[in-house]
Amino acid sequence: EIVRQVIRFLAPAATILAGKKVLVTAGGTREPIDPVRYIGNRSSGKMGYALAVKAAQMAAKVVLIAGPTSLPDPPGVCVKKVETAAQMRQAVLAEYDDSDLVIKAAAVADYRPQLASPQKIKKSEEQLTLTLEKNPDILRELGAKKTHQFLVGFAAETENLLEYATEKLQKKNLDMLVANDVTLPGAGFNADTNIVKLLYRDGHREELPQMTKIELAEKILAKICEHISK
Amino acid sequence: EIVRQVIRFLAPAATILAGKKVLVTAGGTREPIDPVRYIGNRSSGKMGYALAVKAAQMAAKVVLIAGPTSLPDPPGVCVKKVETAAQMRQAVLAEYDDSDLVIKAAAVADYRPQLASPQKIKKSEEQLTLTLEKNPDILRELGAKKTHQFLVGFAAETENLLEYATEKLQKKNLDMLVANDVTLPGAGFNADTNIVKLLYRDGHREELPQMTKIELAEKILAKICEHISK
Repeated sequence: EIVRQVIRFLAPAATILAGKKVLVTAGGTREPIDPVRYIGNRSSGKMGYALAVKAAQMAAKVVLIAGPTSLPDPPGVCVKKVETAAQMRQAVLAEYDDSDLVIKAAAVADYRPQLASPQKIKKSEEQLTLTLEKNPDILRELGAKKTHQFLVGFAAETENLLEYATEKLQKKNLDMLVANDVTLPGAGFNADTNIVKLLYRDGHREELPQMTKIELAEKILAKICEHISK
Repeated sequence: EIVRQVIRFLAPAATILAGKKVLVTAGGTREPIDPVRYIGNRSSGKMGYALAVKAAQMAAKVVLIAGPTSLPDPPGVCVKKVETAAQMRQAVLAEYDDSDLVIKAAAVADYRPQLASPQKIKKSEEQLTLTLEKNPDILRELGAKKTHQFLVGFAAETENLLEYATEKLQKKNLDMLVANDVTLPGAGFNADTNIVKLLYRDGHREELPQMTKIELAEKILAKICEHISK
């Protein structure tokens, strides 16, 4: 124990992730309505990509599963592109078992059109009704299957942030949750900065000031390393 | 008339657009479901941007009205960004009257959610029903208001291409229509190449081979110049 404590004292937090497998998801998903139209969301992928880049710099083996974004593949990261929530689920489950740290920064669609039309829907009708059905909850599934993984989720809300976030952390069996109110200026989708609160399994909370998504990625990884080494 | 014919013979087609105002639309639109989710479409904006670039190279005054894309603003072009079909309509109408050539390459959403929720919709329900209502038909409005403008539309279809395209050309009072079957490999959304048919007001049709969107932009503008100078 003394040796471990000394090593922890001497080793910078950064080295804790060296050689570990880190699975990061990023971006939004697209749920087809027809071959041309889809339901999308405003995730730019920037937060997830920043986390992947920083984890790779900390010598982790990083797998990034990303929905459609316009961001270039980060160097040193294994990138797998997906489009729908169903594809995201498959890709994530395939990488989960031997991952040490899993950060789900992607904004996966909660609903998809019940039927995707095989042909482009013509605009003949004045009104159209679209029936949406729930997508599987990937994060909840990961929480339920968790063995040794440190599991981190994100919550983007427009109201009742802490209430929803606390519920999400518990229900999905997460170790940490990064919560942000996307209505704040300087926070959320497509912005280069973010303002978040960190919630932990033990009930502990931290509020972080506005910072760039790159700075935040570093901060989040440092906090994760602290908790993993406890 | 002889002088005009000689000038036409001597002047490269390119000079016909010099100093003319060319209005190009590009990209898709996003119709909000709530602050986070939207209905989008797969237009990358590449075709419209290529047309704007080439028209600017032909010394036209180019205004490009673009939905969300990841493309950089082309040099020498006045770019106005919009998000929804309603914003696209306003921006296009504001530039229409003094335009000489109008090319509507954007994929404007035909339908929008009847009500956009002011807060993020929670995933409590197993099913959600989304009622969509028709957006105004911008191209039809431009056709109806046309005075001196040469008006070019695009049709992206997944079936019955020529039938739908011919109907669109007539109903919307277009001078030219660029029709593509987006299901063909090497054609349509997000591809760098396209395979199109050109339809003209007088019933004339041309089939073009597969070419890059940049080459196609040049070809389309050359064809437009031929028709304008007739």
